[in-house]
Amino acid sequence: MEHGPIITLTTDFGYKDPFVGIMKGVIFNINPFANIIDITHGISPQNVIEAALSIEMSFAAFPHKTIHVIVVDPGVGSSRRPILVVTDYHYLVGPDNGVFSRIYSSKHESLTVIHITAEHYFLPNRSTTFHGRDVFAPVVAWLSKGINVINFGDPVTDYVNIRIPVPVMTKEDLIEGEVIYIDSFGNVITNIQTQKLDELFKSNPNGKLKVVVKDKEAPTKNYYSQAEDKGLYSLMNSFGYLELFMRNGNASSNFGIAVGEKVGVILT
Amino acid sequence: MEHGPIITLTTDFGYKDPFVGIMKGVIFNINPFANIIDITHGISPQNVIEAALSIEMSFAAFPHKTIHVIVVDPGVGSSRRPILVVTDYHYLVGPDNGVFSRIYSSKHESLTVIHITAEHYFLPNRSTTFHGRDVFAPVVAWLSKGINVINFGDPVTDYVNIRIPVPVMTKEDLIEGEVIYIDSFGNVITNIQTQKLDELFKSNPNGKLKVVVKDKEAPTKNYYSQAEDKGLYSLMNSFGYLELFMRNGNASSNFGIAVGEKVGVILT
Amino acid sequence: MEHGPIITLTTDFGYKDPFVGIMKGVIFNINPFANIIDITHGISPQNVIEAALSIEMSFAAFPHKTIHVIVVDPGVGSSRRPILVVTDYHYLVGPDNGVFSRIYSSKHESLTVIHITAEHYFLPNRSTTFHGRDVFAPVVAWLSKGINVINFGDPVTDYVNIRIPVPVMTKEDLIEGEVIYIDSFGNVITNIQTQKLDELFKSNPNGKLKVVVKDKEAPTKNYYSQAEDKGLYSLMNSFGYLELFMRNGNASSNFGIAVGEKVGVILT
Repeated sequence: MEHGPIITLTTDFGYKDPFVGIMKGVIFNINPFANIIDITHGISPQNVIEAALSIEMSFAAFPHKTIHVIVVDPGVGSSRRPILVVTDYHYLVGPDNGVFSRIYSSKHESLTVIHITAEHYFLPNRSTTFHGRDVFAPVVAWLSKGINVINFGDPVTDYVNIRIPVPVMTKEDLIEGEVIYIDSFGNVITNIQTQKLDELFKSNPNGKLKVVVKDKEAPTKNYYSQAEDKGLYSLMNSFGYLELFMRNGNASSNFGIAVGEKVGVILT
Repeated sequence: MEHGPIITLTTDFGYKDPFVGIMKGVIFNINPFANIIDITHGISPQNVIEAALSIEMSFAAFPHKTIHVIVVDPGVGSSRRPILVVTDYHYLVGPDNGVFSRIYSSKHESLTVIHITAEHYFLPNRSTTFHGRDVFAPVVAWLSKGINVINFGDPVTDYVNIRIPVPVMTKEDLIEGEVIYIDSFGNVITNIQTQKLDELFKSNPNGKLKVVVKDKEAPTKNYYSQAEDKGLYSLMNSFGYLELFMRNGNASSNFGIAVGEKVGVILT
Repeated sequence: MEHGPIITLTTDFGYKDPFVGIMKGVIFNINPFANIIDITHGISPQNVIEAALSIEMSFAAFPHKTIHVIVVDPGVGSSRRPILVVTDYHYLVGPDNGVFSRIYSSKHESLTVIHITAEHYFLPNRSTTFHGRDVFAPVVAWLSKGINVINFGDPVTDYVNIRIPVPVMTKEDLIEGEVIYIDSFGNVITNIQTQKLDELFKSNPNGKLKVVVKDKEAPTKNYYSQAEDKGLYSLMNSFGYLELFMRNGNASSNFGIAVGEKVGVILT
């Protein structure tokens, strides 16, 4: 017994319009055995960085050979290219606008980026405003049927790579990072990862971390309900990032912390 | 190898309550092989016109024999009829309140509308407030198992057809239409279709279109990112409708344009 | 031909983040034949009572042997236990924080609650903040592959049972209940069930019910569109609960009625 190929969808289409449903219809028309899974359609409109972080967090959780489609595409209809990214174990399809930047910079043995040009895999009479339906959905449906990646176009190396802010160790006892994502609980996720903190400890293995945002300390905890009160606290989250939180509350709105806010970690 | 029958769901149930999940449970109880696909559950509460436009945009994208269920049903429990609409290639099931009006008026070779009366296909002890669970879910589950449409009831011809505003050519060089839908990006979709614009050009094939809303011109573009600034622009969208937009912004909220607003197209 | 095992998901993760998608990826990695169905991800953050009511309304609609996962888990990472609840016909998996209280109190022939301790069914290196991914998703995936429930841990009897308010018959002609749930239409659901009303009628089988909230009467109707105007009305809803509503409107916001508001039913 075979199971159907898995195709995941990540878009900024929201949950009001039929656009996601239409993409699913197009896919099933070509491959009725596809197993289509929503990752999220709640990416903020045109927010390529948010989409890049979302797909970074999620793609590797899926089985090998999963096909991930990302449609956050402010340049739809222009000359921006549709691309197919082939990593060690996954396929990713979407616009060449930097949405795969965190995939490019992640660890992998092989990486091929193909400029999709084989128009016979697109819908006929494609529009200039809905390539999710006219380009990306049919391409991934054909890909899920076993069409070889080389049939979609030629490899390119000048794909768009957007700069997502990285933390900087400004002194041997200080890391300066920033907020890169707010989740729907209002948890505040920074760009400071476990490995970066390990560097801090080199100068003083017995030091203690002090997390500071907006001139306020956010004491470190191991899990959310360890916080004793409704203050601002921090922990290393399940993706290995430093996160600021408020127990059973929205840290972002209660403490006025948005994406881009600077966060310091001092070793004392 | 066979694939499961596709059943799509379109409702105004939102994303907070378990009601959609319950409908899926009822369907699987009858046909565990069904492939249930969400189109949207974000239709505005009781908004039959919005649902009619949503299903018009999406139904034909799906494979032949797909079964579409629409539950936007302010008259639930009253004498309004449950109906099954059979078009050339699709089945549509829902309340007889006009939600299928755009299906009736679309091009098709055959159209049969059946008043669903075969109560042995309903859940026993049906409620007066949740026919999505008690009537529509079990009916489409049985339909997906191959029960012939004639077993659900008799054809009717007096089904409810609601008037959705159509544009009018008030002069040979002027079309007066109106806004019929706002999508979640804030794009403003009018009822003026490509074919209507073709009529305009008959009087002056070399004329130029001028789109006007609220005494303001919305210059025409081919795709979103062609707009140079944050002004109001227009294009023909991927469904063949004239659409007003703001590049990387919400045209509806920024320019105060809601459903019902008049839109003029002048040939100059 | 076999169909895949059904796994339902109910969380407070919302629709913005990739967290639900990640859980699905983990499940498919272990059992690619699973049929994963969303019940809702719109539970209010950390609202265990809302989740308990949601799963009570929905679980029994699904086929026998369905596996229901509920992740509303403010105590994640602390010593709160992961549990597996085995009822007559269903499996339910989630944190031992009372989220299954309405399952415990529902009618069933058998009920077993297992403290999940078999860590070899968890993901390695589990985090302290995302047990949906690291504990619950892999456990239900293994369960869906046919692993016997006894392999996950030992039965316990001291599981957490939270008190959800019950109505009280303060006089032989008066029931005092309260609002326990507001749905996304703004319908106001009370804790007063049909059986409770039957008790009222014992004293006066020919009496007439009068529903009162905030010193205002909400006349009883059989279905929504039977209400003649935009006033506050009541009916017995499709789950057997007394519900207050406003025709084609949001009763909760228009009449200022929230969870916890007292509702009286008088027999006159």
